[in-house]
Amino acid sequence: MKALRKGERVDDLHRNGYKIIQHPERFCFGMDAVLLSGFAQVKKGEKVLDLGTGTGIIPILLEAKTEGEHFTGLEIQEESADMARRSAALNGLEEKVSIVQGDIRQAPELFPLASFDVVTSNPPYMNVGYGLKNPDSAKAIARHEVLCTLEDVVRAAAKLLKVGGRFYLVHRPHRLIEIIGALQGMELEPKRIKMVHPFLEKEANMVLIEAVRKGRSMVKVEPPLVVYREPGVYTPEIYDLYGY
Amino acid sequence: MKALRKGERVDDLHRNGYKIIQHPERFCFGMDAVLLSGFAQVKKGEKVLDLGTGTGIIPILLEAKTEGEHFTGLEIQEESADMARRSAALNGLEEKVSIVQGDIRQAPELFPLASFDVVTSNPPYMNVGYGLKNPDSAKAIARHEVLCTLEDVVRAAAKLLKVGGRFYLVHRPHRLIEIIGALQGMELEPKRIKMVHPFLEKEANMVLIEAVRKGRSMVKVEPPLVVYREPGVYTPEIYDLYGY
Repeated sequence: MKALRKGERVDDLHRNGYKIIQHPERFCFGMDAVLLSGFAQVKKGEKVLDLGTGTGIIPILLEAKTEGEHFTGLEIQEESADMARRSAALNGLEEKVSIVQGDIRQAPELFPLASFDVVTSNPPYMNVGYGLKNPDSAKAIARHEVLCTLEDVVRAAAKLLKVGGRFYLVHRPHRLIEIIGALQGMELEPKRIKMVHPFLEKEANMVLIEAVRKGRSMVKVEPPLVVYREPGVYTPEIYDLYGY
Repeated sequence: MKALRKGERVDDLHRNGYKIIQHPERFCFGMDAVLLSGFAQVKKGEKVLDLGTGTGIIPILLEAKTEGEHFTGLEIQEESADMARRSAALNGLEEKVSIVQGDIRQAPELFPLASFDVVTSNPPYMNVGYGLKNPDSAKAIARHEVLCTLEDVVRAAAKLLKVGGRFYLVHRPHRLIEIIGALQGMELEPKRIKMVHPFLEKEANMVLIEAVRKGRSMVKVEPPLVVYREPGVYTPEIYDLYGY
């Protein structure tokens, strides 16, 4: 494994002793990735694809938490993909976690169709133009729909999932109606929804969704996930997800 | 006002001294109606229609809580409509609360199109067939989609609301995806969603939705409403909604 590159740091994931390489000026994973990897269910022997994997946080956490057989992360940005690959190696996961550099919009040509049991994604949340100052920066690409839209992510998931396979998405609740429309348009039927509220008495600021390819219409709205019990103090659920 | 009929009782609403006539063997209003009248926003001078008003609980509570100008309740069952009308009279609300006996499916012929600022509904939740023993009973008609479907309710709301008018619906979360599809199919754009959980750590068992006729796509997921703090003890929000 190559040494760390300039500006990079290694963070402890509190799971299996795993670590991750991040670059604070490029992009560090957020709570959303941690919540998604807690929400996603991966069964023994399943194959998982993470669309827009960034630092590789989701495949690495899912490898630690589940008995899935193999985890692939697809990432368009070469530097992020390289960092994710080095993080996998740093944890001795070269066999179980593959990082592929490529475009979500081309994902159906990069992998065999209907070949994954589970697809996850923590995609860019924000429409292009909304507060976007530097569209070429690594952070902008991770946060804004510069290189892929919600529709692109959903289409890739639908094409790559087996029938009955599960798509796990974290996104912003203000786009919930659009998300549900996009999922249903690709025959991904929402089955579980979990709202994330920063405090119990605040609006949701994240939503976690499980959708099943060609599932039947019936959704569960799970207990809400509340992040802070009081300012600066996480709820037990969050400490648990972070492995403290 | 006629005297109470056999089997009827009068309950206190803890609002403005208002009372309501109910018949325990027919149908009594539930918490869903109370939550919907807390969730719905009616501004000064607005005209409100409640689709499937039953005992008239929603128009009567909204009259108590808001500065709306007029409240109409539409109810297909003659006995319920008569009971609702007598409840309005019992509270001296003949001028402000009108009860119309009629079919939601014919609502667009009963009232001028695009004439209401607000439409509310606490419709039957359950598909026909699902656990339905006696489809002609008053309770079955109130709870099961015997005489009107979700689609019928949404269509009536869309046709009777002004552009920019607000539709308030309480329903079961397991049908959320279908509800959103039905609303969007009639150009009613969901703007606020509030999940109701019996306990904080339980799945939602009711959902409250505000949709705006021809509104733009952007939804808020409000703080969850939790019903019980512990078994048998309501949360302060619920005591407040019940006016205790």
